Order: sequence, then structure tokens, then C-alpha cells
Amino acid sequence: MRIGALEAGGTKMVLGVFDEDGRALEKTSLPTRAPDKTVQDIIAFFREKGIDRLGIGTFGPVDLNEESPTYGDITATPKPGWRNFPLLRTLKEALGVPAAIDTDVNAAAIAECRMGAARGCRSAVYVTVGTGIGGGVVLNGSPVHGLTHPEVGHMLIRPHPKDPMPQGICPYHESCLEGLASGPALGKRAGKNADQLTDDDPIFTLEANYLAQMCVNLTMTLSPAKIILGGGVMQRDFLIRMVRRETLRLLGGYIQTEAITARPDSYIVLPELYPISGLVGAWLIGKGI
Amino acid sequence: MRIGALEAGGTKMVLGVFDEDGRALEKTSLPTRAPDKTVQDIIAFFREKGIDRLGIGTFGPVDLNEESPTYGDITATPKPGWRNFPLLRTLKEALGVPAAIDTDVNAAAIAECRMGAARGCRSAVYVTVGTGIGGGVVLNGSPVHGLTHPEVGHMLIRPHPKDPMPQGICPYHESCLEGLASGPALGKRAGKNADQLTDDDPIFTLEANYLAQMCVNLTMTLSPAKIILGGGVMQRDFLIRMVRRETLRLLGGYIQTEAITARPDSYIVLPELYPISGLVGAWLIGKGI
Repeated sequence: MRIGALEAGGTKMVLGVFDEDGRALEKTSLPTRAPDKTVQDIIAFFREKGIDRLGIGTFGPVDLNEESPTYGDITATPKPGWRNFPLLRTLKEALGVPAAIDTDVNAAAIAECRMGAARGCRSAVYVTVGTGIGGGVVLNGSPVHGLTHPEVGHMLIRPHPKDPMPQGICPYHESCLEGLASGPALGKRAGKNADQLTDDDPIFTLEANYLAQMCVNLTMTLSPAKIILGGGVMQRDFLIRMVRRETLRLLGGYIQTEAITARPDSYIVLPELYPISGLVGAWLIGKGI
Repeated sequence: MRIGALEAGGTKMVLGVFDEDGRALEKTSLPTRAPDKTVQDIIAFFREKGIDRLGIGTFGPVDLNEESPTYGDITATPKPGWRNFPLLRTLKEALGVPAAIDTDVNAAAIAECRMGAARGCRSAVYVTVGTGIGGGVVLNGSPVHGLTHPEVGHMLIRPHPKDPMPQGICPYHESCLEGLASGPALGKRAGKNADQLTDDDPIFTLEANYLAQMCVNLTMTLSPAKIILGGGVMQRDFLIRMVRRETLRLLGGYIQTEAITARPDSYIVLPELYPISGLVGAWLIGKGI
């Protein structure tokens, strides 16, 4: 069986074809343009490669309510042409194969839980910290959708007293996580691209505090077995160590679970499948139909 | 079949005996003292009434990991005598019946989901706002435990700029929800018992903001179908209306789900089974063994 996997991202589409055992047979990527162009290219690729089923991990927000008439549609995105685009239906009908969909971050969480950093765990949160901040959640072994799906990046947090930009840059929320701690927020605060910051820049003290507040709030609301931090901002390897220390400080001894307090380095972890966690998750979603 | 139900609270124990259809056959309550006294009284009650199984919803923290040697034990509580007390095991052995346990707030969430304010929903959060703040979570139809269990009251939030007590009163955390918005926090801020505040006290503007920040963060991390607000502080019926308005304001139009934006009064709701949500949940837990 040939399983198509699509990780639909805001800037690029990653496409793969895998066998049942997860061996990659084909892999390519395309820039994300308006759907009339990009979706035709995706269809052409999977048609040419010949697939038996398709799994999709997509940017959101996306309608994941299987009983909804707009199931599998992208919903309120600002991306030109994508608002209300019926992604699942279009691909399913054009390719004539069974297809299933979840968010890109849920796909990554599923993959890390099944065969990555949270192997063997019944619960985990996968957070990507990059151009935006998004989180996928697996609890009791299944991805969480709920009424829509989690939007971890938009939780409200406490601005650091030394932050010169305490409101953040989110157009919707004063001091939400994404507005304070995404790559662009780092860049805006520093007055230069976040990539150009040196590792000793004091801005990372703020960043660690914000990501640690997130880890505390995820612990308090979801009680996951692991918190997995991926995305471009986390590629600086000192940052996760700062986040762990700051998380323990903010927890203040309230949580006495040894898996957190004695082994923070196996509680807050980097992804093992990066940068293909989402694509592997899309394969698992396609396989599991 | 006679099903025993125990809601083990920090100040009182509520005990009931129900039949399979949920008809209450017996009901009583006891003050919560040290376990050597209180637990003997609980055993005597259920022995006398004769029960076939027992469900427990307890104050926490409690070990809910079924594979743990301390499964069903109360863990790090400051309550005298209760730390590390094997609640489930003691009752199960003394009564010689099958018994199951969850947190009091998970029990309440289960009950409200099955037959109360969230009837028909696959997910809901039940939050009690009283002496403390605690939350129970049902997702995909099951209560959430995760690594331990959620501790919603200790999420970190943003102090209101007009709060004269922005640190809150939690001994563990600066500006956590419970430290800023529990009954005792209201009282400390006002310099009198929270019960004595008049409904037009400006302190409720802060309270609504804090509970709305909680609703935003629960929406962003759990995406529940309903948020149910119970507990003593919520008995003032204007407060939930303020919380709904403030939640929509803080969401800032980012979430476009009509079930939230167009019908906030059916998204953030009062419990229907109050004040026996937890006891009914304990019955359901006992019944479901």
C-alpha cells in the first residue's frame, strides 16, 4: 500500500509517499500559493505517484468536526484564497482515495507520541515556536479536537516586568504567548531579525520566561506526560535548558511529580522527528483511516 | 445493585447510596477531620447501608496512575494526616467491594457531561471557584488524568492593572488564578469576608477579568464544548454574565466559532447538578467500574 502524506504549511507544502512501514518512497515540497495553483500541483503529484490513501496535517484553523458540512475546510485564515477552502474534500474527490485530516501540530504530536520523543506515552503536547506558535495535543492516546482544536499560541500570559514590548504583537490579543514569544516578536523587540540575535542576548531571558509560563499552564490544564518544543526558535540548544529551569522556578514546588521535578530534561524535550514530525504524523493519519 | 458514592472534600465528606438508575437511597455528610477518625465513620456508614460497589471523587492531589503502587492515595496535601493516605485502598479493603476513584472536579465534570449542563457533549471543563479553584476535564468522552491530573487553579495569569494585590495570595505562585480569584483572594483584597461584598463592588470587575482569562486559556488549550463554572463565588448570578462578556472581549475576535461568539450563554454555563455534581459523578464512577 502507498500512503500519501501532506503537511500543509503556511509557507510551504511538504508531500511524501510512504509504504505501510513508513519507508519514504517519494518526497518533495512546494511553496504555498493560492489554492487554485498549489492544490492542483498537489493533486498532480499524488496522481503521478499513485497512492491508495492520503493523510493531511494542515495549518489552521480547520474544521475538524466530522459531523459538520464543512468538515475538513480551512476556516478563518487571513491567507489569500484559503479562507473556507475545502481542502479535504477537494483532494479526496480529485484523487478518489480515502483521506483524513488533522492540524499540522496534532499530526506532529501524534508522530512524536507514536515513534518520537514521547514514544510510549499516552499524552503529550507538541508546540512549535517559530513564525507563529501552535500546539498539538494528544490525551488518552488520541488527538484533542474538542469544539474546534487547541490554539495554544493564543493563551494569555503575564508580560515580564523588563519587557519593553509588554503588549506583544498579536493583532487580536494583548500579551498572548504568540504575540510575546514568536520569532517575529523576538525580532520586533530586538529591532532586527531574530536569527541575528547572539545567544547571550538578554532577550532570551524573557523568551525563556514566556515559554516557561506556557509550560506551567500546559501542565496545569492538560497534565501531559511530555511537552515537546519544536520550531525554528528552539534550534538554539541552550534555550530549552533555560525553559526547563524557569518552568521549575515558576512551578514553585507546587507540583511534586518526580517525572517533572527530578527529571525536567525528560519532561520538556526537543522533538526527535524534527523537521518531519508533521509529515510523519500525516502518514500515520493516512495509515490509520 | 446499591452503589456507594463518596465526594471527599477538604471541609466535608458527602456520602450517598444510589440505585443503578441514580435514585438516592441514602445521603449524609460529615466534617473532614484527620483520616483515622473520618475514614472510620465513612466505612461504618457504607457498611451499615450495604453497598455493592463504591465510586469516589476526592480532593487532590491524588495518584490516578493505575500502574502506580500508590494508586488512589492522596499525595502532597497540607491537610493534617491526609498526606500519602491510601484512600482508595483503605475503603476498598474495609468494605470488600469494587471501588474506583477520580478527583472531585473530574467527578463533577463527568456528571455534568453525562446528565447536566454539558449533556450530549464529548468534552467539557468543570471549574469550581470557591475556597480554592479547581478544574475537572472531560475530553473525547473521558476524564483527563495525564501525568497526574489537571490543576487548573494554578495556571498563571496576568494581574489586572487596577488590582491592589497583583501578586495574589497563593503560597506557591505569583499571580496564579487561585491566588488572584478564589474566595479568600477576594476577601483579602477587600479586607472582609467575600460573602459580605455587595454585588456592585468594583472588585467583581477584577474577578470577571481573571475568570475570563481562565476561560480564554481553557479554550486555547483544551477547546472544550462547554466551560461550566460552579462553586460558592459563582452563586452571584450576575458574575457569569460579566465573565462571558469579558471572555469575548479578551478573545478579540480571533476565535470565530459561532458556538462561542454567537452563543456565549450556552458556552460558559452554570452547573445543572450543583451542589451535588461531584456526588453524582462519584455514583457514575462507581457504576462504571
